[in-house]
Amino acid sequence: MPRISTKGQAMPDSPIRKLAPYAVAAKAAGRKVLHLNIGQPDIETPSVALEAVRNMERTVIEYSPSDGFASYREGLADYYDSVGVKVSPDQILVTTGGSEALIFAFQACFEPGDEVIIPEPFYANYLGFAMSAGVKVVPVTSRIEDGFALPPVAEIAAKVTDRTKAILICNPGNPTGYVYTDAELEAIRSLVLEHDLYLFADEVYREFCYGDIPPRSVLSLDGLDDHVVLMDSVSKRYSMCGARVGALVTRNAALRQACMRFAMARLSPPTLGQIAGEAALKTPRSYFDKVKASYVGRRDALIEGLRAIPGVTAPTPGGAFYAVAKLPIDSSDAFCQWILSDFDLDGDTVMMAPASGFYATPGAGTDEVRIAYVLEESAIRRAVAVIAAALKVYPGRS
Amino acid sequence: MPRISTKGQAMPDSPIRKLAPYAVAAKAAGRKVLHLNIGQPDIETPSVALEAVRNMERTVIEYSPSDGFASYREGLADYYDSVGVKVSPDQILVTTGGSEALIFAFQACFEPGDEVIIPEPFYANYLGFAMSAGVKVVPVTSRIEDGFALPPVAEIAAKVTDRTKAILICNPGNPTGYVYTDAELEAIRSLVLEHDLYLFADEVYREFCYGDIPPRSVLSLDGLDDHVVLMDSVSKRYSMCGARVGALVTRNAALRQACMRFAMARLSPPTLGQIAGEAALKTPRSYFDKVKASYVGRRDALIEGLRAIPGVTAPTPGGAFYAVAKLPIDSSDAFCQWILSDFDLDGDTVMMAPASGFYATPGAGTDEVRIAYVLEESAIRRAVAVIAAALKVYPGRS
Repeated sequence: MPRISTKGQAMPDSPIRKLAPYAVAAKAAGRKVLHLNIGQPDIETPSVALEAVRNMERTVIEYSPSDGFASYREGLADYYDSVGVKVSPDQILVTTGGSEALIFAFQACFEPGDEVIIPEPFYANYLGFAMSAGVKVVPVTSRIEDGFALPPVAEIAAKVTDRTKAILICNPGNPTGYVYTDAELEAIRSLVLEHDLYLFADEVYREFCYGDIPPRSVLSLDGLDDHVVLMDSVSKRYSMCGARVGALVTRNAALRQACMRFAMARLSPPTLGQIAGEAALKTPRSYFDKVKASYVGRRDALIEGLRAIPGVTAPTPGGAFYAVAKLPIDSSDAFCQWILSDFDLDGDTVMMAPASGFYATPGAGTDEVRIAYVLEESAIRRAVAVIAAALKVYPGRS
Repeated sequence: MPRISTKGQAMPDSPIRKLAPYAVAAKAAGRKVLHLNIGQPDIETPSVALEAVRNMERTVIEYSPSDGFASYREGLADYYDSVGVKVSPDQILVTTGGSEALIFAFQACFEPGDEVIIPEPFYANYLGFAMSAGVKVVPVTSRIEDGFALPPVAEIAAKVTDRTKAILICNPGNPTGYVYTDAELEAIRSLVLEHDLYLFADEVYREFCYGDIPPRSVLSLDGLDDHVVLMDSVSKRYSMCGARVGALVTRNAALRQACMRFAMARLSPPTLGQIAGEAALKTPRSYFDKVKASYVGRRDALIEGLRAIPGVTAPTPGGAFYAVAKLPIDSSDAFCQWILSDFDLDGDTVMMAPASGFYATPGAGTDEVRIAYVLEESAIRRAVAVIAAALKVYPGRS
């Protein structure tokens, strides 16, 4: 039997997947599982997008150009203009989800053995994309006590080696919901220029920002045109994760061209998803206002509820729809499994993601969980009640 | 400015893309370009697939499972059963086009520096996928004089080194349209077993086979359960290249699991494309009969026409919708550009793919072109007339 590759064996498993059988068993036992573990919002896709798909007049579902439909890229350029960023359609490459934008950037920028610095906790799949490209992830730890602010720039600078090729940030952040301040972005900017690095920024949660100031795109930072690679996606913005449409945006023409070569090899991003994505650009502002108001309500219910539980630390996330909370427990892996397999409050239990999977530093985050507030406010309140009751009786309470 | 990666710089350009500006210029000059260069058929997508998309009742375009919708994988297992292959739904992983099936297999099976043997000419993007994974492509040349039959097995065996990890075949073949005989498949089978290799088979043209015997899937070869990885796609079968839905099929459970890790990192294949793909499984047999009859007519018109031109060699393809022809010219790169920029027959010209891009051996195929017979029979006849007239006056005629 031929061998599986080293990276094929070492690719990380999803931090949630090992819990899935316990959720299935809980449901089989008649319990209701409140799913706080996933990034699939329950929000409806804008009707303009759904209608565009339903009214599709094509009789052949053809390839699109490898960099996406020109009309869609033009629409995206207008969209970026509306959020204060000037890019031309030919600086945009439409990808198969934000995931593929990351894959292309990793392939086009890194040699095997190169290093990328990522503030942790971070979106777990960054590890997989790095592993695919043979790239080493160097974490710099942000702390729950600081509300997951960017670690001091000196701490990041200390991680730079001669193999460091890029810094990767997620803003607003998954899993923390943290939104970087202008000062933090400027600090990153200086570091990137000083060491001639790429700056990768995953900004897929841009529309989910609950303060008065909208999140600032890295594309608005001065002097970084050759350095910045933006990863974007329609998945969260329009609640259409299954469209598999994202974008890689860069003003670095040589890098755009290199990414285009990888894009040509896989032929085209999805045509049907792009039809939905292009139509979604016409989503009325009222849709986002309503979605945002709903998330603010859910977030506040979650954070207030969690903070009322003795021993729980839960900073208020400024964006996205996730929160990381520190619980008075031995191990979030054990707790998240136990609550599914051994606990319910009048028949209700919850599924959460253990936060250890979002850290690259061994042993970090083992008493933290990621909670996605993607359910109705009443369900969020109920979930908090379940967690509170569970913590009272959990045998591994610390 | 940070450096582009070595592979980012070296990724091959499309063999057709450098011709695109000449096609644009020809059109701008008022000439009609007959496109024989692309693999996007003009055939309509089956109406069952289009209707499924138009009647979609979902209000949230959600992620599918990372290995695809279970109902779709069950339907696919039935489909394989109908072509004489027994696989279970959990031996199928739904991918984003056949391209992603290849990418996953390359990532999961190869270490950087490993080698894959591929009979050439081959689908040009195999080179790109190999380069992405740091894998060396070792070509074994099939000859137009032999109708592109598999080279003698001894010639293939001589290419095996201690870094050889797989043999990759495409059956029916792009760009040659060659369909492997049972004897050839058995020869490959022996070689694979003898050297404990993977056997990757791209069978996306399975339904386009014009002899009496249907093409035999590698999954029907005895004793290769741990070795065979099938790459499949809905793109050509149902003329829906833009759906971006394919499949990786293997009975090797460990390999399926490794591929699943890469699949989880990119979250999910396209939901809308899968809706179309699942519905397309109900495409009536009459659709394929009609499509096949139409391709046979096109193929015969093309091959008869080409053979009537002095100095042209054109073996009859048994499948797919491509043919490779040898022309009496100095260079197909030069000829394909010249015919677009300097020639027309009463206003008509043609775009073809120079075949050199389908060979890994330097200098091979430089007097061959790939012609995709994806146009109506009358347009095919016209294109042949244009080629015949062009060859009479082409300055680089040999």
